[in-house]
Amino acid sequence: MANSEGNKLWGGRFVGNTDPIMEKFNASIAYDQRMWDADIRGSKAYVKALEKAELVTTEEMNSILHGMEQISEEWAKGAFVVKPGDEDIHTANERRLKELIGEPAGKLHTGRSRNDQVVTDMRIWLCDAIATLKEDALQLVATMVERASVEIDVLFPGYTHMQRAQPIRWSHWILSHAVAVSRDVERLQEIRSRTNVLPLAPGPASWKPCCVSAPRLAEFLFWASLCLTHLSKMAEDLLLYSTKEFSFIALADAYSTGSSLMPQKKNADSLELIRSKAGRVLGRCAGFMMTIKGLPSSYNKDLQEDKEAMFDCFDTLHGALRVTTGVMSTLKINRPVMEAALSPDMLATDLAYYLVRKGLPFREAHGLSGRAVFQAESKNVPLNQLTVEDLAAISPLFDRDVAAVWDYSSSVEQYSAPGGTARSSVTAQVQHLRRWLQDHTQ
Amino acid sequence: MANSEGNKLWGGRFVGNTDPIMEKFNASIAYDQRMWDADIRGSKAYVKALEKAELVTTEEMNSILHGMEQISEEWAKGAFVVKPGDEDIHTANERRLKELIGEPAGKLHTGRSRNDQVVTDMRIWLCDAIATLKEDALQLVATMVERASVEIDVLFPGYTHMQRAQPIRWSHWILSHAVAVSRDVERLQEIRSRTNVLPLAPGPASWKPCCVSAPRLAEFLFWASLCLTHLSKMAEDLLLYSTKEFSFIALADAYSTGSSLMPQKKNADSLELIRSKAGRVLGRCAGFMMTIKGLPSSYNKDLQEDKEAMFDCFDTLHGALRVTTGVMSTLKINRPVMEAALSPDMLATDLAYYLVRKGLPFREAHGLSGRAVFQAESKNVPLNQLTVEDLAAISPLFDRDVAAVWDYSSSVEQYSAPGGTARSSVTAQVQHLRRWLQDHTQ
Amino acid sequence: MANSEGNKLWGGRFVGNTDPIMEKFNASIAYDQRMWDADIRGSKAYVKALEKAELVTTEEMNSILHGMEQISEEWAKGAFVVKPGDEDIHTANERRLKELIGEPAGKLHTGRSRNDQVVTDMRIWLCDAIATLKEDALQLVATMVERASVEIDVLFPGYTHMQRAQPIRWSHWILSHAVAVSRDVERLQEIRSRTNVLPLAPGPASWKPCCVSAPRLAEFLFWASLCLTHLSKMAEDLLLYSTKEFSFIALADAYSTGSSLMPQKKNADSLELIRSKAGRVLGRCAGFMMTIKGLPSSYNKDLQEDKEAMFDCFDTLHGALRVTTGVMSTLKINRPVMEAALSPDMLATDLAYYLVRKGLPFREAHGLSGRAVFQAESKNVPLNQLTVEDLAAISPLFDRDVAAVWDYSSSVEQYSAPGGTARSSVTAQVQHLRRWLQDHTQ
Amino acid sequence: MANSEGNKLWGGRFVGNTDPIMEKFNASIAYDQRMWDADIRGSKAYVKALEKAELVTTEEMNSILHGMEQISEEWAKGAFVVKPGDEDIHTANERRLKELIGEPAGKLHTGRSRNDQVVTDMRIWLCDAIATLKEDALQLVATMVERASVEIDVLFPGYTHMQRAQPIRWSHWILSHAVAVSRDVERLQEIRSRTNVLPLAPGPASWKPCCVSAPRLAEFLFWASLCLTHLSKMAEDLLLYSTKEFSFIALADAYSTGSSLMPQKKNADSLELIRSKAGRVLGRCAGFMMTIKGLPSSYNKDLQEDKEAMFDCFDTLHGALRVTTGVMSTLKINRPVMEAALSPDMLATDLAYYLVRKGLPFREAHGLSGRAVFQAESKNVPLNQLTVEDLAAISPLFDRDVAAVWDYSSSVEQYSAPGGTARSSVTAQVQHLRRWLQDHTQ
Repeated sequence: MANSEGNKLWGGRFVGNTDPIMEKFNASIAYDQRMWDADIRGSKAYVKALEKAELVTTEEMNSILHGMEQISEEWAKGAFVVKPGDEDIHTANERRLKELIGEPAGKLHTGRSRNDQVVTDMRIWLCDAIATLKEDALQLVATMVERASVEIDVLFPGYTHMQRAQPIRWSHWILSHAVAVSRDVERLQEIRSRTNVLPLAPGPASWKPCCVSAPRLAEFLFWASLCLTHLSKMAEDLLLYSTKEFSFIALADAYSTGSSLMPQKKNADSLELIRSKAGRVLGRCAGFMMTIKGLPSSYNKDLQEDKEAMFDCFDTLHGALRVTTGVMSTLKINRPVMEAALSPDMLATDLAYYLVRKGLPFREAHGLSGRAVFQAESKNVPLNQLTVEDLAAISPLFDRDVAAVWDYSSSVEQYSAPGGTARSSVTAQVQHLRRWLQDHTQ
Repeated sequence: MANSEGNKLWGGRFVGNTDPIMEKFNASIAYDQRMWDADIRGSKAYVKALEKAELVTTEEMNSILHGMEQISEEWAKGAFVVKPGDEDIHTANERRLKELIGEPAGKLHTGRSRNDQVVTDMRIWLCDAIATLKEDALQLVATMVERASVEIDVLFPGYTHMQRAQPIRWSHWILSHAVAVSRDVERLQEIRSRTNVLPLAPGPASWKPCCVSAPRLAEFLFWASLCLTHLSKMAEDLLLYSTKEFSFIALADAYSTGSSLMPQKKNADSLELIRSKAGRVLGRCAGFMMTIKGLPSSYNKDLQEDKEAMFDCFDTLHGALRVTTGVMSTLKINRPVMEAALSPDMLATDLAYYLVRKGLPFREAHGLSGRAVFQAESKNVPLNQLTVEDLAAISPLFDRDVAAVWDYSSSVEQYSAPGGTARSSVTAQVQHLRRWLQDHTQ
Repeated sequence: MANSEGNKLWGGRFVGNTDPIMEKFNASIAYDQRMWDADIRGSKAYVKALEKAELVTTEEMNSILHGMEQISEEWAKGAFVVKPGDEDIHTANERRLKELIGEPAGKLHTGRSRNDQVVTDMRIWLCDAIATLKEDALQLVATMVERASVEIDVLFPGYTHMQRAQPIRWSHWILSHAVAVSRDVERLQEIRSRTNVLPLAPGPASWKPCCVSAPRLAEFLFWASLCLTHLSKMAEDLLLYSTKEFSFIALADAYSTGSSLMPQKKNADSLELIRSKAGRVLGRCAGFMMTIKGLPSSYNKDLQEDKEAMFDCFDTLHGALRVTTGVMSTLKINRPVMEAALSPDMLATDLAYYLVRKGLPFREAHGLSGRAVFQAESKNVPLNQLTVEDLAAISPLFDRDVAAVWDYSSSVEQYSAPGGTARSSVTAQVQHLRRWLQDHTQ
Repeated sequence: MANSEGNKLWGGRFVGNTDPIMEKFNASIAYDQRMWDADIRGSKAYVKALEKAELVTTEEMNSILHGMEQISEEWAKGAFVVKPGDEDIHTANERRLKELIGEPAGKLHTGRSRNDQVVTDMRIWLCDAIATLKEDALQLVATMVERASVEIDVLFPGYTHMQRAQPIRWSHWILSHAVAVSRDVERLQEIRSRTNVLPLAPGPASWKPCCVSAPRLAEFLFWASLCLTHLSKMAEDLLLYSTKEFSFIALADAYSTGSSLMPQKKNADSLELIRSKAGRVLGRCAGFMMTIKGLPSSYNKDLQEDKEAMFDCFDTLHGALRVTTGVMSTLKINRPVMEAALSPDMLATDLAYYLVRKGLPFREAHGLSGRAVFQAESKNVPLNQLTVEDLAAISPLFDRDVAAVWDYSSSVEQYSAPGGTARSSVTAQVQHLRRWLQDHTQ
């Protein structure tokens, strides 16, 4: 053939029947050995199904089960030795089983392709991973709910556009993030319910629309990305609050680091790390989507990209959730500074509502309140230091009773609908989340 | 102040109180006017809630409702005139309402921020969009199911790694894609159930953990991406099947185009366009995730990126689903070519199972079948032309009854478990999907 | 054939030889008409090449050139009428040319495929776009350099990890961002030099490794993304500086907006919009990369995704650069607040260097300075209020001359290397950038 | 303080001054120890600069250099022991240096922050990595050029839209991909020239617009993504060519694998792996861009995401380039099948040019050639079997000399411009690339 001497002709490096670079490029054992337990559990379930279908005898099944238990112990003790030919965890366990029990080992793969086995292992592993992440998330929600309950009376500015907007409760801020995480838990359960369906029946054709598992993994990767954007938002708020300029909170030393150059520095590294991870995980998700885009049906080796993405996203989120819990359970708030950050102009909306209660349409009231703000700025006094005369010049509807507006506590108490800032609303939400936590913990 | 004459000092272009470039950069009316109907429906619901809460009188409510209906008609007729100050659809409708009914218009915004309104409008619009896409997807599934039912007896090669693997039914291929789309419909319903909760209660504080809506949109964008990777997979298969070399199918002219240079060409442009869209939509999803990453809580103007992403993903998927339906309902299959593409080596797995039935472990049987394949290649004959003597030399278990293996129909009939390739399995799946379609159409 | 009555059998919507949904899905005229001028210029150059190659006569060339000029005028006046069959700008111009000059129009396409034409048009358009963006970026750099020159004496805190680190000049901050943009201009020129190569030679085979143009576009999209991450960083800094808590700067009204709900709010919407755009543009880039991933060589219709991405990225960056220029040329700084934000603990590094100058290794000096910071915190006094005795208790090397450390101006003057914070360094950089601007403006 | 007993109150796990989960989340030593050599080389250069600036004595410098060499040997031998406190490679080396040489070790960090050091180390490492990848890419180009030279006389179909378009040379296909890789090398050199600038000058302020290094890394990550989309395109072509249906090429066994289920299968896993990697690497790039989006100036811990992305992209591309070289130097082509795939309808464009040479405008000639194609299809004969009478009925310009059109070799020889398919054009390109290789190898 044209190319029998090809290597010399075309200058490529010599290759015979194997190329060590290709073998390394192809092998997944370096990372997929994490699934050793899932692989063994999957094979044990499979051999039981084979026995039921009379494709192996009870004796053979028992021999295989026994061998599998031995292998499991070897992995657990760190005694399992990966050998050169073991390109993935499945090959490694199969090779070892044959060493241990001999010929019946070969029956374990009746009607099961390597791809079936990989899909099954990944589902088992992912189900465990999801259970762990759910635990992590519940712990975070629980920590936040209890903190919100204790610190319910602390007021501070709610921000929109990074500008002070209206007074809110610190607990209201905490719970808004706790609710976001609780919804992530609910989404995670939907994914779990789709993942927890094991395709163990022996016998079907080799051709499977095999990405059957790819959408599930893609969903998980995206879920992790979305959850991390929630954590990134919380981290960004806390980073702002822990600047010298805001000084609302101080992180525990365990979650801060010093500077190698500047002796006075205390940096909130934990929060920056949490903020950073949304990029990493969304990158994995986008990368995996790009990998599967335009692939033909059924198994293609491109899909091998799935496992590292899965492991990395799990590890990242597992770390991020627990560190967030650590941060939230140990940070200290600086209540006087938080309350001192409230300023009368943040009650301008309340001033508008005062006029609405006297009969003006909101848009008009908004305009008049804006004029009061402008007036106070011009006179260089806080909004609540305008005299009734000043205000009456803006609208005759202003009267002595306007004084009642200038109270931050009353302001937050106005909003007593579900999700509002009133003490009762926040308490109701604490109770709601406590029940939710009970329902989601078994 | 340092900068009162700044523009001249620093060489920037002159700006007074407004900068037309900034106004254009900021305005969303060019695209968000698509939500005119959602905006009007949202406002009508809101004013009814205000009336219930006694924040507007019944008379004012009626006046607002009436004005809204007039505006609705103007939009429907294409008679609504957007004016220079109308930076978004909400401002435009509010401005027009005031022109039509005067002062009471100002009451419509009591306790409702622009952001509340945007969030509500987007939910209403998205619910409609989801309903449309569900329709599109159901139509596609229905088309595929009916086609699968009619063409159930056509066999052709199932491929893995783009290599011929085992014989399957053409209907099995069709249904594998139909099932993927049916699962996308189920996922879409989960998103809809989370979207269809309208936050209309008047009164809460301005500060909202406002991204409340961002996760829902992100989910939708990702859903669209995932659905399009499914369509891209189907398109890739069909593109392969429509090459000269495969020649399994021919697209209808309506879904093909000629070449401006080469008179003989007929290109499957429709399929290439479908394949391409997963990138576009995942790009929108990834871009939106990047935009929200690290934003502080509550509303920030960055979130304005949400609407164009939502519209574009909807339009893209709406087109892609309908074109896919068109392609699938009109393509012609070339049954003789499909069946001629089946070759005896695709029965090598069946040959191995023959030995398994005679008592060999699968791994050993696999090895012996492989040797038979090698033998056939060496003798340059098809696998089924090996004599019983040839085979017996490989394993004494081979006997005359091996002849029964060389039948493609029997091969596919072996797999009669749910999801298998047997006629009964495929028929059962057709029936299952018909029921599913009924359940999902109201 | 099996499918001659297919539409009825399989329930798809009826399609004859055309499907209006497919036509819309396929057509690009809605957006690619932006390239009308590039298309005409490309065709004019092409017909000249054809004449040189004696494939058209001089007369035919003149006729075509004349027709093209007429079409150009029609577009410029808004008088060109797109007709139903015009699926893209090339078809539209070709159709119109034929109407105007008759048969010779058909010669224009000798040896030129539609794809050649699209590639040429996109290059011409992109070269113009790059020139415009370069102008925009130079304007921004010029604005920043002049501002840096004027405000060179303003000191304020340099931040790392969002924590106050060391005193720097406000101009140093400005220039750091100007330099980043100047490097973006240099990168853009590299892309332009690769783009500005027009493939006009008539005659080559239809088969081209046609993505020849895709890498260039991909580079451009990525360049735009990178440039926008630079603008997003500057925007984020300015957003922090414009919070009530920092109060270092105030944006001009033209770049701020009020709140529909809260009369006192002034939001830096311009900066939030700038910050948001990096996501949009990177999304386009990632989406396009995903679209081209795994495509076979040469032209595939998937590549039609290129144009909208190109237009959108150009528009976005064009807007963002000019708005940034507007913001930077009109914002007002609050010098007293900036300088008041400097605090003695920001000189702790200088305190360590004091000890280094007295012979201690830096790591040890860092440790001792850290103890001084701790001591000051314990005594609840600023670091510079520790007495010489306090300091001497930490290290006997501390002496009266330590007083010289407590001076922010001296601190910034220490760093006089290129890129340093000394007045001379900053002045040198201003001059360097002015020269750079001259070199890059023709 | 409010939270002194916080851990118990809020249910978080107990944390004292340290949290092992946070420490692991924060530590980078597990992966950044790959930079041990870069770190040592950077420190050696730095201490020399310190000595020149008289910040350390010659003696101290020598002591530090000597210590560094010892550490280097420990790493090289695998004898370096990472200790619990070593959170990154810099801390580890610094700690070890102090153990080895005592106090002078502390002087090494005068005027150098950890971030300076990280940036320097990454640049050194990245320069080495770029040199390696350039080598890999040159080897691939060299292999392809030599193969193209040897197999220059093999013709086969050029495809557009996955449909047979016009005859081309196999070498033309090879070179089109070699040219793409050669341009990637040129782009890589531009990045290297920007990377190879070491910021070693001691003394500048801590505050640096520190992402100075982030854009360079981002460029590298994107470069790797773009290069991999080129490899993915080549892989996709080769995957098509290695299907049973095309059968143009056969991969060497070293780059193929069998199936665990189907004895007859031979899968081109190497090509699928190459195709898959563009997603992984673009995901890293997009993830990193998302991480840096919206970060404030200067160092933030988020940037720690840079190193794993850099390592992973390097490893991936290093593997992919070498495997591609292996594939290209060992695959066998099936020349008879390739040539048999040429069919007369692929000469329809040539038939149109025949008419153009007789004076028809191209568009008209294209139409007439198309009618000939249709006629041949109707008569069910190959295009070249139409009689002169058949053709003359379509256009009187057709004459006996049309027979000369039906020759694939003549067809490819027509295109003799640079980049064309003529033997002379392909030879010229081989020579051009050989010179280019010489220029780029030193």
